[in-house]
Amino acid sequence: MKIVAAEQVASQPVAMEGASGCRVRWLVGEQDQAPNFAMRHFEVEPGGYTPRHFHPYEHEVYVLDGEGVLIDGDVPRPLRAGDVAYIAPDEVHQFRNVGDRPLKFLCLIPHAASRMSVTTAPECGREPQGS
Amino acid sequence: MKIVAAEQVASQPVAMEGASGCRVRWLVGEQDQAPNFAMRHFEVEPGGYTPRHFHPYEHEVYVLDGEGVLIDGDVPRPLRAGDVAYIAPDEVHQFRNVGDRPLKFLCLIPHAASRMSVTTAPECGREPQGS
Repeated sequence: MKIVAAEQVASQPVAMEGASGCRVRWLVGEQDQAPNFAMRHFEVEPGGYTPRHFHPYEHEVYVLDGEGVLIDGDVPRPLRAGDVAYIAPDEVHQFRNVGDRPLKFLCLIPHAASRMSVTTAPECGREPQGS
Repeated sequence: MKIVAAEQVASQPVAMEGASGCRVRWLVGEQDQAPNFAMRHFEVEPGGYTPRHFHPYEHEVYVLDGEGVLIDGDVPRPLRAGDVAYIAPDEVHQFRNVGDRPLKFLCLIPHAASRMSVTTAPECGREPQGS
């Protein structure tokens, strides 16, 4: 059994294309021999965002602190502490911090995600380059 | 995509043998067509506890509020807001609220859990009846 303060888990910048001002902590994962899914903690600085993208696996999300929007396709929907979000496989999504303090949330994914491709979507209101 | 305030999800008492003063909300689950795992929100009142038991599936836990202990086999280990716990398959465990306000935590399980058996363990320091 592992018990640890989340803030003591090392965080790393999210290097994925299309991300800005995001850090991630892998709280529980394959490193713990967890057999099925991983718990990650994201922290997005004010004005920061995750990539706008989609992929064939789901997200189960719980918002711990801050104020943001979750872009649902093209529609920004408000997101605040205490909210839960379920993003189904292949739904276009993006998290954006619209508040003045860090937006913190848990985002869980199945281990199978590491074997699946992620597709970047253009920012809302912009056409894909070359189209 | 579903976004909802966790506190607006209906809660139900935990009726499992060995539980006292616990309520559960199923935040994300098979009702959402989530394919792999379920996010549940537990609230344990002061003095309350979950069953002391084990089962062949894992728990991934994040503590949202309150002060408790997580019994790890026979050993009570402190648990507080911001802690993450990973309970591996077949580890004996129990959550107890030792504070003066509700102990609130997320506890995620694989859907396969519904097809697996749970074994109640005697309370710490008590021998099983009949042994």
